[in-house]
Amino acid sequence: MNSFGRIFRVHIFGESHGSTIGITIDGCPPGIALSPADFIADLERRKPGAKGTTPRKEDDRPEVVSGCHNGYTTGAPLTILFHNKNVRSKDYADLKDTPRPGHADFVASQRFMGYNDPRGGGHFSGRLTVALVAAGVVAKKILIPVNITAALIEAGGMTDIQDAVSKALEEGDSIGGLVECRAENIPVGWGEPFFDSAESVISHLAFAVPAIKGIEFGSGFRAATMRGSEHNDPIVDSSGKTATNHAGGITGGLTNGNALIFRVAVKPTSSISKKQTSLNIQTNKMATLEVAGRHDACIALRVPVVIEAITAMALADLKLLARS
Amino acid sequence: MNSFGRIFRVHIFGESHGSTIGITIDGCPPGIALSPADFIADLERRKPGAKGTTPRKEDDRPEVVSGCHNGYTTGAPLTILFHNKNVRSKDYADLKDTPRPGHADFVASQRFMGYNDPRGGGHFSGRLTVALVAAGVVAKKILIPVNITAALIEAGGMTDIQDAVSKALEEGDSIGGLVECRAENIPVGWGEPFFDSAESVISHLAFAVPAIKGIEFGSGFRAATMRGSEHNDPIVDSSGKTATNHAGGITGGLTNGNALIFRVAVKPTSSISKKQTSLNIQTNKMATLEVAGRHDACIALRVPVVIEAITAMALADLKLLARS
Amino acid sequence: MNSFGRIFRVHIFGESHGSTIGITIDGCPPGIALSPADFIADLERRKPGAKGTTPRKEDDRPEVVSGCHNGYTTGAPLTILFHNKNVRSKDYADLKDTPRPGHADFVASQRFMGYNDPRGGGHFSGRLTVALVAAGVVAKKILIPVNITAALIEAGGMTDIQDAVSKALEEGDSIGGLVECRAENIPVGWGEPFFDSAESVISHLAFAVPAIKGIEFGSGFRAATMRGSEHNDPIVDSSGKTATNHAGGITGGLTNGNALIFRVAVKPTSSISKKQTSLNIQTNKMATLEVAGRHDACIALRVPVVIEAITAMALADLKLLARS
Amino acid sequence: MNSFGRIFRVHIFGESHGSTIGITIDGCPPGIALSPADFIADLERRKPGAKGTTPRKEDDRPEVVSGCHNGYTTGAPLTILFHNKNVRSKDYADLKDTPRPGHADFVASQRFMGYNDPRGGGHFSGRLTVALVAAGVVAKKILIPVNITAALIEAGGMTDIQDAVSKALEEGDSIGGLVECRAENIPVGWGEPFFDSAESVISHLAFAVPAIKGIEFGSGFRAATMRGSEHNDPIVDSSGKTATNHAGGITGGLTNGNALIFRVAVKPTSSISKKQTSLNIQTNKMATLEVAGRHDACIALRVPVVIEAITAMALADLKLLARS
Repeated sequence: MNSFGRIFRVHIFGESHGSTIGITIDGCPPGIALSPADFIADLERRKPGAKGTTPRKEDDRPEVVSGCHNGYTTGAPLTILFHNKNVRSKDYADLKDTPRPGHADFVASQRFMGYNDPRGGGHFSGRLTVALVAAGVVAKKILIPVNITAALIEAGGMTDIQDAVSKALEEGDSIGGLVECRAENIPVGWGEPFFDSAESVISHLAFAVPAIKGIEFGSGFRAATMRGSEHNDPIVDSSGKTATNHAGGITGGLTNGNALIFRVAVKPTSSISKKQTSLNIQTNKMATLEVAGRHDACIALRVPVVIEAITAMALADLKLLARS
Repeated sequence: MNSFGRIFRVHIFGESHGSTIGITIDGCPPGIALSPADFIADLERRKPGAKGTTPRKEDDRPEVVSGCHNGYTTGAPLTILFHNKNVRSKDYADLKDTPRPGHADFVASQRFMGYNDPRGGGHFSGRLTVALVAAGVVAKKILIPVNITAALIEAGGMTDIQDAVSKALEEGDSIGGLVECRAENIPVGWGEPFFDSAESVISHLAFAVPAIKGIEFGSGFRAATMRGSEHNDPIVDSSGKTATNHAGGITGGLTNGNALIFRVAVKPTSSISKKQTSLNIQTNKMATLEVAGRHDACIALRVPVVIEAITAMALADLKLLARS
Repeated sequence: MNSFGRIFRVHIFGESHGSTIGITIDGCPPGIALSPADFIADLERRKPGAKGTTPRKEDDRPEVVSGCHNGYTTGAPLTILFHNKNVRSKDYADLKDTPRPGHADFVASQRFMGYNDPRGGGHFSGRLTVALVAAGVVAKKILIPVNITAALIEAGGMTDIQDAVSKALEEGDSIGGLVECRAENIPVGWGEPFFDSAESVISHLAFAVPAIKGIEFGSGFRAATMRGSEHNDPIVDSSGKTATNHAGGITGGLTNGNALIFRVAVKPTSSISKKQTSLNIQTNKMATLEVAGRHDACIALRVPVVIEAITAMALADLKLLARS
Repeated sequence: MNSFGRIFRVHIFGESHGSTIGITIDGCPPGIALSPADFIADLERRKPGAKGTTPRKEDDRPEVVSGCHNGYTTGAPLTILFHNKNVRSKDYADLKDTPRPGHADFVASQRFMGYNDPRGGGHFSGRLTVALVAAGVVAKKILIPVNITAALIEAGGMTDIQDAVSKALEEGDSIGGLVECRAENIPVGWGEPFFDSAESVISHLAFAVPAIKGIEFGSGFRAATMRGSEHNDPIVDSSGKTATNHAGGITGGLTNGNALIFRVAVKPTSSISKKQTSLNIQTNKMATLEVAGRHDACIALRVPVVIEAITAMALADLKLLARS
């Protein structure tokens, strides 16, 4: 459903063009200093406006409506709302006829028997990641002194990312990208040996982020080509530090005291200016489709702060679980 | 913890060298025909004994002790036990001194304050996948006519897998591998738009399988290098069938009516015959370590049936959820 | 925590004197007609203003901010907000010194290390039942044709309830009451044999309502004094109808096709005008306390619609579970 | 389903006349000393054999098959099995025709489409409380120095319980009873303000015990007849101790530092020797029924230790949650 976590537990709601998007965080410890200013830096990193991102004007002002009193979290559920200012009421009926390739239009309509909100993808929209970023801000505070940083390291197969974006824009096309995330200062032992391994929890959340197609920890897919004698990380001091870090900071599902490192693959945005073909479900014939409106040529540019947020959410939950 | 699923919900228990390994399946519908013979084929595929797998003699005879009456599931919790016949009582104290590289010895001891069962990895053992395979057999029956098949498509970076295994065995080393899984005949709409996307649920379970380092759906990591015009899968008929399948059968977190396709990277087995170095925690000096005993040169050989099992568990849960 | 349910799952947030109280319903099926007018009748029944209830002016206008499109639920999370209009900012510091008898002031401060919002009880306030009533309205629609009615059948030990309330008001005191709830047209088989028996789920939610001290199903506490030959309800037709209904409509944890009947005991409101004594925690001496402000002389008058709501929430969840 | 708890989480399985009954405890902290002898005292208290209880010979020898190593819990799932020695294979087909009044025969058959195990009630049997008692033994160890005691304080409406039982036996009938439970040395602040109030969690588990018809905390149903000035418990020292204990040790859903006190009503056993009438579902005519076999004239005699167990399970979970 639309919840995640066992102690630090989040519930997300809202639609791309509904009145309000929000997230409730249950299980946040009391006594954490929290002010509106704390959200600015991360929300700015997610905002559109940079070259290659959609020019949609989103006013991402978070409103904390519960769980915070006199500048501190109270231990009661913390709800953060974002009011959509830039809502379009245009008719989306044509989307129902000719579903956009790569989008959830068709599956959403089937699953929800046509009652889903089709405007901008409705609840299936990347717009909801604004709420994840807000929850990430709170989670990062719980995790101090853990330090989480994610960055786009490749786009469209190129490391000169700006160049790759420019080319895609010229062509009215979009490109994917590769995001790497590192988290440092994590103690030994967060995670669970079986179903709730640290990798399980992080990957679960990562695939909740729209457009993610793959995730790998440490050596990742390269491990499939390696020998054990090469892959094994020898422990070199009593804190658990290893000489190499093929494990990516997790052994047996538990954090091992080394840097947590993983990468996610972001697919190219489905919405492009280029003409495409898709089936018109009414006429049962292939039709040419032009997806009008504001697009991200490289949504991967906006993904790093979202990946930081879901990593923080996962780790905050594992930290609080380890306490009990 | 050691549970997974929302309707088809499993609970796993046991240790590598404890008396009993088992799994309880709660939420299994009543009226499913189930006999001991149903488990044989999949358990045989997981068994050691083939070239490149450990010669440990495991007698994997499942005992269904509850939830089944007169050959049919009753709707009450279904518990399946495996009695370990081949339990070693040798002293594992040396493992506590010099943790094996790549193993959970160190993190487990830290997390469980030295109380964890160290014999053969205890609860952190790949031995427990026998219980996953058994649960997978039940899940596959719930999923009929969905058809799930996984295969090892590369080992040690080579497609001639037998050759790769032979070389690793000669060197007393181990190799990793790449497993691909396909599931067909899945209807449109299983999964959830957000946290419980089909990818989230499958990856959560995949990373519960020891040795998995990465997972990718459809185009996977290649998507990061692609253009939208190339990646988008055009719908070509009213069932949702697409001309290409870069999505890997999932759009917006929901199954889209096309084949579900994903790949996992399996790291090389940590236990190797070759000498390795690791820290002796007592003396705080690096020591040479030889991991005695029975090893898998290529554990990836035994992984496909486990991946089928966790895929079946994930899909059975999503199917039952979609009904409600 | 602040969530309940397995399929029809609610998350509550807000404080008595915070800006917003709300509830998110996840798992609500798509296609249910829902308009603001649907909430009026039940919210009116909960409202203060009648004789014996607090004169606090609450403007209980629900705002559905997500999960509803064109007058129908979409299947995405449904969030309903109530904006507190009548928020007091007076200093509650004295409550921290001399905790009100019968209130959560002391335990809340201890548990949340003094960070809890003390205004009007904060998150521990009966004010939050407005959100339960709203969720109940949605649940009742899912349950059609099940019919749920609750009524106050005794107050202060008297069946002439108006008279009992008048006396309490004169004395500046408060009284408790007894609420009976009936639900009809429930099919056989909702509930689970063990931990999630229908009684378990209903009682779990009933004790989430402030001031509830006891619950009994069917014959209830009288069963403790009865004989089996008297208590057993003989089945008289093939639908499961029984000649008597000592079971209160539930056998073995499952609904049995007869009317579901239970009663809850509501304690007298803790806030009274009469002078009371309590410890001043700063001086460690007993002090006289007058709880100023607006009180309910008989909160039980407002409880029936809340009990209907939690019953509807429990049954809606069991109904959706039974489908899967 | 058949699980309960958030940190200290139990999963139950088995049938009255199946081969094995068991319970898995997940979330049990490592390092708790545990030996087979620890279970004897509580299991003996639940055993039949005393006057008024069934003469069925149950050999309740617990077998701990996982999660315990060298006499200490390991932190991995702890599974305890009981092997049924006294299994009857007689034909229960007649029960399907003429369901026993007060039993789950009819509802179970409807819910599970006739696939339920009918022998001795199958999964709906009081026999499964043996597993609850075992889990309670572990929970009590986690709770030290909390002290939990439950006792039967009335049977068949009489306080001379032995006399009441004798009379019922003579008549071939059965009687209900009243059980009171007290838990002492609980610190302030266990529980949650809303859905997981301490009363919610305890009552949820109490109604999972077969034959429980009501529960009341502190003043309970008497609170409905009281005035606020009488019911409010004044705090008298800084530990939260109150002069009276009408609250029963819980305020605002949280433990308040005083003794936790509650009572449950136990209905008379449904199985009696006396002739009864019930519908024959095949012939659709009322039939006379004699329930053969071994019955408890007063099952309430065996309930106190079960109520202690579920109280311990609830409190252990709340204690571990409060830590995180």
